[in-house]
Amino acid sequence: MSDYKLIVIGAGPGGYEAALQAAKLGMKTAVIENRDVGGTCLNRGCIPTKTLLHSSELVNGLKNGEKCGIAAENVTINLERIFEHKREISQKLRSGIESMFESSKVDLFRGTGTLCGEGSVKVTSADGEKMLTADNILIATGSVPARPPIPGLDLPGVITSDEILDGADHLYQSMVIIGGGVIGVELATFYNDLGCEVTIVEGLDRLLPNMDKDLGQNLSMSLKKRGIKIFTSSLVSNVTKCEEGLSVNFTAKDVQNSARGEVVLCAIGRRPNTAGLFAEGVSIEMNRASIAVNEKYETSMKNVYAIGDVSSKIQLAHVATAQGLACVEALAGRTAVTDVSIVPGCIYCRPEIASVGMTEAEAKAAGREVKVGKHVMFSNAKTIISDSDRSFMKVLADVDTGAIVGAQFMCEHATDMISEISVAIANGLSAKQMLKAMRPHPTFEEALTRALEELCCD
Amino acid sequence: MSDYKLIVIGAGPGGYEAALQAAKLGMKTAVIENRDVGGTCLNRGCIPTKTLLHSSELVNGLKNGEKCGIAAENVTINLERIFEHKREISQKLRSGIESMFESSKVDLFRGTGTLCGEGSVKVTSADGEKMLTADNILIATGSVPARPPIPGLDLPGVITSDEILDGADHLYQSMVIIGGGVIGVELATFYNDLGCEVTIVEGLDRLLPNMDKDLGQNLSMSLKKRGIKIFTSSLVSNVTKCEEGLSVNFTAKDVQNSARGEVVLCAIGRRPNTAGLFAEGVSIEMNRASIAVNEKYETSMKNVYAIGDVSSKIQLAHVATAQGLACVEALAGRTAVTDVSIVPGCIYCRPEIASVGMTEAEAKAAGREVKVGKHVMFSNAKTIISDSDRSFMKVLADVDTGAIVGAQFMCEHATDMISEISVAIANGLSAKQMLKAMRPHPTFEEALTRALEELCCD
Repeated sequence: MSDYKLIVIGAGPGGYEAALQAAKLGMKTAVIENRDVGGTCLNRGCIPTKTLLHSSELVNGLKNGEKCGIAAENVTINLERIFEHKREISQKLRSGIESMFESSKVDLFRGTGTLCGEGSVKVTSADGEKMLTADNILIATGSVPARPPIPGLDLPGVITSDEILDGADHLYQSMVIIGGGVIGVELATFYNDLGCEVTIVEGLDRLLPNMDKDLGQNLSMSLKKRGIKIFTSSLVSNVTKCEEGLSVNFTAKDVQNSARGEVVLCAIGRRPNTAGLFAEGVSIEMNRASIAVNEKYETSMKNVYAIGDVSSKIQLAHVATAQGLACVEALAGRTAVTDVSIVPGCIYCRPEIASVGMTEAEAKAAGREVKVGKHVMFSNAKTIISDSDRSFMKVLADVDTGAIVGAQFMCEHATDMISEISVAIANGLSAKQMLKAMRPHPTFEEALTRALEELCCD
Repeated sequence: MSDYKLIVIGAGPGGYEAALQAAKLGMKTAVIENRDVGGTCLNRGCIPTKTLLHSSELVNGLKNGEKCGIAAENVTINLERIFEHKREISQKLRSGIESMFESSKVDLFRGTGTLCGEGSVKVTSADGEKMLTADNILIATGSVPARPPIPGLDLPGVITSDEILDGADHLYQSMVIIGGGVIGVELATFYNDLGCEVTIVEGLDRLLPNMDKDLGQNLSMSLKKRGIKIFTSSLVSNVTKCEEGLSVNFTAKDVQNSARGEVVLCAIGRRPNTAGLFAEGVSIEMNRASIAVNEKYETSMKNVYAIGDVSSKIQLAHVATAQGLACVEALAGRTAVTDVSIVPGCIYCRPEIASVGMTEAEAKAAGREVKVGKHVMFSNAKTIISDSDRSFMKVLADVDTGAIVGAQFMCEHATDMISEISVAIANGLSAKQMLKAMRPHPTFEEALTRALEELCCD
């Protein structure tokens, strides 16, 4: 008999939720983690970034304070305290997970988990090695920041989100961010709020190139207004030392250009984390750097599954969680209720961005005829009161069936409102059905009624 | 032929939206307003209060700023500027309505509208009187603050929300609020944030007595923690002068007590506004102080309708709007899409409160068997990051059908999330159907998944 019914390698949002659910369903479960529990999300990703933004948001609020009657002198930014606070929040959430492991009787092994073959995992820690056996193994090792082979990216002063979120001893005077995706724009918002001179260099033709065009374009205008320099369609050739610190040299439309800063943040994505995962001679089918899985999260090795960033096309905490739960429910002969095909994406810039389902461009590419209802929130009372920048809501419906197929929000609280659309998509609701709801006044949410009305008018 | 197809008396959120929609549907429309367009909501209610709270929220944020690394010295509260800002926001929204009237060719008459009989309305202004005729008349004159016949409520220093929102020349040192309903707790939050000593005296056994018990009780603990004194089950006998200013004298469990303050805010509700509405000899059926209407908003006089606070049991801006639109759509032989029976209620305290559909107590009283899913948000990451007080989400489902029948939220962004529940109620969705949606991380919204899961577990 195996030691465990299930061993999960990696205690991020995919792994820990899967382990807890497995225990709840009666499986004897272990988790192996070689860093802190909570994974990237809790320690070096979503949570730390949002905590930093919570601090910088206050600085931003003060900038506009006099307008609404609140003035303060000598606003001081205690960077050490900001990062200490970030660590406290992560620590609090980590403790929560650790105590849930205990109360659920999930065994936590601290060390590196290595797959040694079917049903066999080795844990390597400072204390030595330990072999464990399990009926099922779930790989949830996540991802690490990618450093592409651009000359100079190994220079001192070139950092990734990992180092940024570890904290710095002083506030950078200036920063060049390579990559205008989620990580890039969130950290640009934070550093710009604190007074750092920020430049973003993006290879594709707009910020957030994987999202709806309107989002990246509006965000770009908003960030520029705050003094962030943005270069798009700009391919970085190398990074070199210069007087200010580092120079990011790039080509835009055949013209050489450069952006200089004290540090360079490399934010061009993340790659699957498989370091130490496979014992010598053990291999499973890969899909480039990702572990290949089928729709049941099965790898090429029997009873070995993979979920989250290490195997998923979409690298998001809530996707990892949903996949982990789906996988564990299936092991228990049950079906998870969450529809893993409807994936919301959130960006904690200002105003926030949230998106789910299809974009106009995706619908077009798929040959699907959609109608778009868009409401620009100039007259939305809460938007005016909160003095928010360029805000809008866009909702898409299938022309034939009337069913909602996607939405893109750029406004305050967008990340907390997008699920209303997800519920609609998951249950095939039409704009008319969504309009049955009386949306309260004054809310940001009222804009959704306007966008839906536009979908319904003939 | 009449001058107008429709005359609307009152340009609040009920009247102005009805007028604009009528014009859109091709009716020749006029609106009569004797104060500012936008009504109570925009000038003396929701919008001003939320604008004030936007300012005081910044003061509150600063109080907790050092914890997250942001410190400021000499925080000054410029009360004049706070109220000036409030006026600017109202003015901006008013201009928006006025220009919509113009572009929609709705005639705006400034003066008091008086119903002179079927199809006949008199407008009285400083310029004189004018008679207008219309095929249909819609009364949307709203409400005014109530001043019950309590001895001493006519003393100088006893004010209502109208005077509060007009602005004051200095920050009150102390304030006693009679009434722990929506208006009372929102203004208590504002004045407490600014450093005023606030006492609330409520006649019933808890704050927000018309809402779910959990809300009032949790809010009470939260406000007390911030130093607000609260007396419940306390019947005010009179208000008298005293050294500090005014003394609100009340009886709680047969014991006489009093609360003293520089001013007294009377916040015990609002009464229908029918001042100057009926010409001599003209009367329509009333329901106590309200205009009596049937489900089609018809009054006892032919082709005369009434909507909003002047005739509605529920006095909320979005209810007035929904009723106004329903009435106008019916005049055009159409059916409005909004379900006017599903009414969200929102309170902009901290954390926010939002509620829709049935409460547990209401379900019980109606003999309906419901199941409750409640999630207390101790472990919700965004709640921890924003350092929010006591937050929770509660969702109710019918035991027989599984359909969601109500919800009560007390958490940040509650007012922007409640419509997800309204959509579910309006379309008969079950908790399981709502759980199909993957809620993004980290959001306040994730708590809804937890509450729904509790509804689904057996």
